Amino acid sequence: MISRDKHDRMANAIRFLSMDAVEKAKSGHPGLPMGAADIATVLFTRFMKHDPKNPDWADRDRFVLSAGHGSMLLYSLLYLLGYEDITIDEIKNFRQLGSRTAGHPEFGHAAGIETTTGPLGQGLANSVGMAIAERILNARYGDDLVDHYTYVLAGDGCLMEGISQEALTLAGHLKLNKLIVLFDDNQISIDGSTSLTDSTDQCERFEASGWNTMRIDGHDPDAIAGAIESAKGSDRPTLIACRTTIGFGAPTKSGTAKVHGSPLGAEEIAGARKALGWDAEPFVVPSDILDDWRLAGLHSAKERKAWEDRLAAADAETRGEFERRMRGDLPETFSAAMLEYKEKLAAEPPKVASRKASEMALEAINAALPETIGGSADLTGSNNTKTSQTGPISAEDFSGRYVHYGIREHGMAAAMNGMTLHGGIIPYGGTFLTFSDYARPAMRLASLMQIRSIFVMTHDSIGLGEDGPTHQPVEHLAALRAIPNHLVFRPADAIETAECWQVAIESRKAPSTLALSRQNLAPVRTSHEADNLCARGAYELAGSDDDARVTLFATGSEVEVAMAAKALLDAAGHPARVVSVPCFELFEQQSDDYRKAVTGNAPVKIAIEAGIRQGWDAIIGSDGIFIGMTGFGASAPAPELYKHFGITAEAAASAAQKRLAELG
Amino acid sequence: MISRDKHDRMANAIRFLSMDAVEKAKSGHPGLPMGAADIATVLFTRFMKHDPKNPDWADRDRFVLSAGHGSMLLYSLLYLLGYEDITIDEIKNFRQLGSRTAGHPEFGHAAGIETTTGPLGQGLANSVGMAIAERILNARYGDDLVDHYTYVLAGDGCLMEGISQEALTLAGHLKLNKLIVLFDDNQISIDGSTSLTDSTDQCERFEASGWNTMRIDGHDPDAIAGAIESAKGSDRPTLIACRTTIGFGAPTKSGTAKVHGSPLGAEEIAGARKALGWDAEPFVVPSDILDDWRLAGLHSAKERKAWEDRLAAADAETRGEFERRMRGDLPETFSAAMLEYKEKLAAEPPKVASRKASEMALEAINAALPETIGGSADLTGSNNTKTSQTGPISAEDFSGRYVHYGIREHGMAAAMNGMTLHGGIIPYGGTFLTFSDYARPAMRLASLMQIRSIFVMTHDSIGLGEDGPTHQPVEHLAALRAIPNHLVFRPADAIETAECWQVAIESRKAPSTLALSRQNLAPVRTSHEADNLCARGAYELAGSDDDARVTLFATGSEVEVAMAAKALLDAAGHPARVVSVPCFELFEQQSDDYRKAVTGNAPVKIAIEAGIRQGWDAIIGSDGIFIGMTGFGASAPAPELYKHFGITAEAAASAAQKRLAELG
Repeated sequence: MISRDKHDRMANAIRFLSMDAVEKAKSGHPGLPMGAADIATVLFTRFMKHDPKNPDWADRDRFVLSAGHGSMLLYSLLYLLGYEDITIDEIKNFRQLGSRTAGHPEFGHAAGIETTTGPLGQGLANSVGMAIAERILNARYGDDLVDHYTYVLAGDGCLMEGISQEALTLAGHLKLNKLIVLFDDNQISIDGSTSLTDSTDQCERFEASGWNTMRIDGHDPDAIAGAIESAKGSDRPTLIACRTTIGFGAPTKSGTAKVHGSPLGAEEIAGARKALGWDAEPFVVPSDILDDWRLAGLHSAKERKAWEDRLAAADAETRGEFERRMRGDLPETFSAAMLEYKEKLAAEPPKVASRKASEMALEAINAALPETIGGSADLTGSNNTKTSQTGPISAEDFSGRYVHYGIREHGMAAAMNGMTLHGGIIPYGGTFLTFSDYARPAMRLASLMQIRSIFVMTHDSIGLGEDGPTHQPVEHLAALRAIPNHLVFRPADAIETAECWQVAIESRKAPSTLALSRQNLAPVRTSHEADNLCARGAYELAGSDDDARVTLFATGSEVEVAMAAKALLDAAGHPARVVSVPCFELFEQQSDDYRKAVTGNAPVKIAIEAGIRQGWDAIIGSDGIFIGMTGFGASAPAPELYKHFGITAEAAASAAQKRLAELG
Repeated sequence: MISRDKHDRMANAIRFLSMDAVEKAKSGHPGLPMGAADIATVLFTRFMKHDPKNPDWADRDRFVLSAGHGSMLLYSLLYLLGYEDITIDEIKNFRQLGSRTAGHPEFGHAAGIETTTGPLGQGLANSVGMAIAERILNARYGDDLVDHYTYVLAGDGCLMEGISQEALTLAGHLKLNKLIVLFDDNQISIDGSTSLTDSTDQCERFEASGWNTMRIDGHDPDAIAGAIESAKGSDRPTLIACRTTIGFGAPTKSGTAKVHGSPLGAEEIAGARKALGWDAEPFVVPSDILDDWRLAGLHSAKERKAWEDRLAAADAETRGEFERRMRGDLPETFSAAMLEYKEKLAAEPPKVASRKASEMALEAINAALPETIGGSADLTGSNNTKTSQTGPISAEDFSGRYVHYGIREHGMAAAMNGMTLHGGIIPYGGTFLTFSDYARPAMRLASLMQIRSIFVMTHDSIGLGEDGPTHQPVEHLAALRAIPNHLVFRPADAIETAECWQVAIESRKAPSTLALSRQNLAPVRTSHEADNLCARGAYELAGSDDDARVTLFATGSEVEVAMAAKALLDAAGHPARVVSVPCFELFEQQSDDYRKAVTGNAPVKIAIEAGIRQGWDAIIGSDGIFIGMTGFGASAPAPELYKHFGITAEAAASAAQKRLAELG
């Protein structure tokens, strides 16, 4: 049991490290770390199951700082607890180039940072995914191996963002009782008091979705401890509204927006030192306090050892499989399973929509990989994300492999990120491509974090037909390709779909989006090569650069249009060639030689894609011809729309012939 | 008073028009129109204040079909009530090319469609903006001219989307008591029962944010009428949860997901005809029922006439100003006010961040235009969106001109759209450019609807510094430029900022995004021309195409980098030229001659922008040199980041010289 005096001094260590680091960096957010220091101190000294010396311990409790601007709270904790990545020099280098201590916590910069936060509400939604992952793995591996809590510190901002609603309703529905959210209820946001903008009773709101809630004084260690203890016993997820004073300890600025996002200034810090009885120099933690913190860092060491023993005692197959999944490695059988599936396709290439081809690929993948967890934002039948292996999970039974995410695209994407971050799971989830806009902030974070979340985006063009322009993506391929480190696939048929899925599954360091058609597509590939052609981003599908006067580049549903245009051009005496471009990003990563060879030397280059031109110039040149969309779509049957917008083989062939004539 | 029998038959007219239209189109959503027909019938026969013959009546009640997939409900109503745009032939042409009756309701296709819906939750959030607009205009013009309700029909999907939380909390906080949401509580979504995905008590949830709520039988006309009557008397916004049966009347499919989004089939429709006692042919409404509906369409005609009389009786200035605002015209004084402001700037060009320049421009704009309503998603001091004219609005006082939107980017953007759609207001609202991702679905709809919402997006690059890659936009300029009909401005200094703002304000048919710097920018323009140079999208800023060996294209904060590179190149004997490109979309709209002249003939073309290359090839060619970002940013002081990522005058000059040497 930690005395109140010791607690206060331990919490003050967080406060002063935070104040000092922000002051030295001349930027940052001292208010949250100062206000939430008591909560964090109680959580980490009395509850968190983790081991700073073995930060990757699979069964550690997860701590997510959803209010990521308070990053110094997390960095202070990691330093104080003895995580080696965060030294006092890193604290001193807060927000400097190359430091591990970025302005907001960045996953991968240091052990102990479970996710990248800053865009508000994301951490909370990630944590729902982590808590789902815990339950799913628990259902498979039992309490001996998987039995941990997920703690979140969230601020007013997190709870005002819409994504929080999607996250909390999903968590409440699934009764994720090992998810405990500590709400730093300081009632201050950047513009001032939250009373300027909100009148929500957060406890009542969470209760409406099946949460357990409590209200406590966030500066009372016993109250905090009692609440967490009680939360751990609940059969529902818990929100603990901790009433705090932002910038606690700052003599004139505490409790105001002034302390939220700016250095306090020397005078205010001096006042805080006096008020809190802290006489150590900047960046110095008195050795007795540091010792107490380091001791706290050891308190789960025995528990971890016992867990290691249980893992060692498990049967070899279970242990091997558990460890493989947590490492994120694929089983050796995966390639063979995919090969077998592609051979089957090549034997009888089906004419199916690529969303259907995706379902068929998933049928093979889900059979080979027990770690895939599917789902859809209420478009299961349209996204074709469910296979024979994927029974739904529910509050009562987590042995399934499918999440009915509800109409919550943003929450789904962020929860998928949380599952990926947790480890042991490869999540994929679907919606319509146009609604990638709803999920975009989370999809971007997957790219930034370099994690393997897989987004299945069907109905990928005007080819969806009658639902009209609200549902027809036009700019979405370009907009998603714009995100760095995001693999955007648009396969042309069943074999390409299988290849793209395989790359997505094998991409450990990048998320993927598969853009898939609603409408049926004629097969353009009737064989599969030993090499995965889609893995190169673009490849020659038909014709030869030796004699081609025209090269037609296309993706997805427009590859068959390009093939038809080639036939027209060939017949007219203009040899043509078709290049399929299933993934821009991977094509850019190829060698210059490969890219030049694929781009080829035909005098006329044409791209065909039922989207906007943006991005295509890199392949066809700014003088290349583009057959696609220049504005929004319309509501009509798909074949009519293709004609109406001039995305046809005839239009492509005619444009090519016109250009050839101009070239003489 | 309408008898129960008559009510039923009137409601059935909606049901059968919807069934028949979906059946003929072979696609669409019959479930909602059939389930919500009773609600709509009560609302439109007993409450809605509107006039089908004068659909633009400024003080009409607004009806928003947030569950836009149920479009046949709205089209049926408009036809039955006598709106001329929706004839029976339009109903028969449901979802066909060129019809007014698109798959989802499209603003501008027909009078009576108040907003474009389909992406779920948007309509609900639009309606909050409409209700705010009503209160703001009421505060200015009084009950005589502005005193109407906003009714919304929302489904489970709308309420599951995160945006609904942002919308409802804002509405509750502002006590928008003239906002009445009819929740079509059918407990069915596409994947099946909502019990698969949600356990939320929606009434409790809304009450937590200050709403008045009721639960009723959504098929009981008297209960519906009683609830609406009671809602109209509330001092808070009202949610009426109307328990309905989706596909009411379909003998075997009602109450299931099967009736949600597919034609019922001939047999099921025949069964419905029998069950509901409807023997009319497809698309035929018995004349007595049609008469009753047309009569209902007339029931506010007197009220409208009285309103016209009140408007006519108002003093000329008030009337003129009210009519001008509702038309969306600008006052004649606006140009002069902007000219005066630009002259002042030219006299002493300030070195300020473009976000500050935006504030200065807004100071002039807000003085000239009483219809601007500012706001920010809790970043007022950072977005510089508040000026001396804009006191905050609150539940108690709507005479102000500033909305503290809270940490609700998506809700803000959609509410702004609602204000624009309502008329009488030009809204602008701010957040960080990177968080445009949160608001993107609503920003896209502004483009699709061709409405003047203005998004102020500050902190527009790595130039924001220490907050790091979560907060640094990299792909966002490209991603926003990808949206059709969206003017993305990135002004380089105070004069350009004023020009861009002026174009944004004058653009009646396109929304605008202003991307603005956090860091100070040296002035690059020291004079303003009679023509608005930014209105052309790009223009020659310095140097001449006569002798230029290098043309440097740049936007925003990088224009001064381009100017410095020009100085280096000039000094090295390579005459250079600088083109500022404040708006791609407007540049694309210029004549070929203008574009060629601006692009120029210098052998080396370089673009400098602290974002990704995508989109630039259209200007510099795919062989042009790009100085910018290729991946995510980092956390460090801004000047270090510019050096680290090589976005400097030296890098640009050096790249140009290398290319010149290669060219010989």
